[in-house]
Amino acid sequence: MSQPNATVLPAATVSRLPGYLRVLHEAEDSGVEVISSVALATRAGVHPALLRRDLSQLGSYGTRGVGYDVDTLIREIGRVVGDRLTWPVVIVGVGHLGQALAHHEVLRERGFELAGLVDSSPELIGSTVAGVPIRPPDELAAVVARGRAVIGVITTPAGQAQGVADALVDAGIRRILNFAAQPLEVPATVTVRGVDLTGEMQVLVYHEIHEG
Amino acid sequence: MSQPNATVLPAATVSRLPGYLRVLHEAEDSGVEVISSVALATRAGVHPALLRRDLSQLGSYGTRGVGYDVDTLIREIGRVVGDRLTWPVVIVGVGHLGQALAHHEVLRERGFELAGLVDSSPELIGSTVAGVPIRPPDELAAVVARGRAVIGVITTPAGQAQGVADALVDAGIRRILNFAAQPLEVPATVTVRGVDLTGEMQVLVYHEIHEG
Repeated sequence: MSQPNATVLPAATVSRLPGYLRVLHEAEDSGVEVISSVALATRAGVHPALLRRDLSQLGSYGTRGVGYDVDTLIREIGRVVGDRLTWPVVIVGVGHLGQALAHHEVLRERGFELAGLVDSSPELIGSTVAGVPIRPPDELAAVVARGRAVIGVITTPAGQAQGVADALVDAGIRRILNFAAQPLEVPATVTVRGVDLTGEMQVLVYHEIHEG
Repeated sequence: MSQPNATVLPAATVSRLPGYLRVLHEAEDSGVEVISSVALATRAGVHPALLRRDLSQLGSYGTRGVGYDVDTLIREIGRVVGDRLTWPVVIVGVGHLGQALAHHEVLRERGFELAGLVDSSPELIGSTVAGVPIRPPDELAAVVARGRAVIGVITTPAGQAQGVADALVDAGIRRILNFAAQPLEVPATVTVRGVDLTGEMQVLVYHEIHEG
């Protein structure tokens, strides 16, 4: 059997896999054993042809005229996106957004475990959020090591984000989710995903102005 | 003078404009009057050729060998993304994430104004977050009308998101930012931007697994 080379999956395909996985888990919970590509695609919000192309890149082709076996496909996508394993996360910046992520139910359900919290505010250090103590920046490396963290989340103000990214990389973190409105410079071995809340809102404003 | 037809700007270009605007505001705050395309692009985290192409689509070409006039470019981008105006926002779902967005400083600084909060939990209704009272779902249309809201933010659990989207559209909202892990069906005149936090984390896990 040929094993698809998962490392060459296009980023756009990878970014759609969690959506497919969500629909498949819902189907599984409802007792559905086989799902058609049209049903899966519609509920995931993509075109069926795109779904079939994405899944064929995983080596999953389903059965023509029948569909995809739900359990098999969950396992195949899980092998790529790592569902059902535990991924320890350190959050740096425990303001409102950092606290919200620390409490985020869906992340916990998907196997992301809060391994540590770091903030520079003296009034926050020592208190706990979601049962995890907040530690000062000079303990970041220790927090990462103790929690065996593999993902760092940056929810600091923009002006602090690059320094935090440098410290995370020094501590051995190679996967960063950045909420600060500040592009980060990191070594080529480090992956950064950015969520730009203000930018998303401004795109909506653009549509409001120009489709008035 | 030719006026570029802003309604045909590619979505990818629009999504980069807030980043350029951020760098330009920082430059302005530092007293910089003219900025080179290389400096602007580097600080915005894009390739200079891409920046020049994006800005040429706005009708901004700068001065060869000199750069872009900072104030002029702020005004030109602001005309497209609506910076420095006020955009009232209604947030539906006042859990941790909804509360974090209600308090988000950067959004306020960029002109997004919290016009209303809606949640279905009896224990939340009547209390205030960021000075704004939380109202029940059956008052959504009244909250939108009273606050003249143009943007709706959905921070409910996934299972409630489509119903909330329907109610927002019925109330006249045509720009939605969706944090629920649930694709939304809306009329073609409505713009939805989705932020999939779990999906972003799973993309990082994918890199962790396959670049081990």
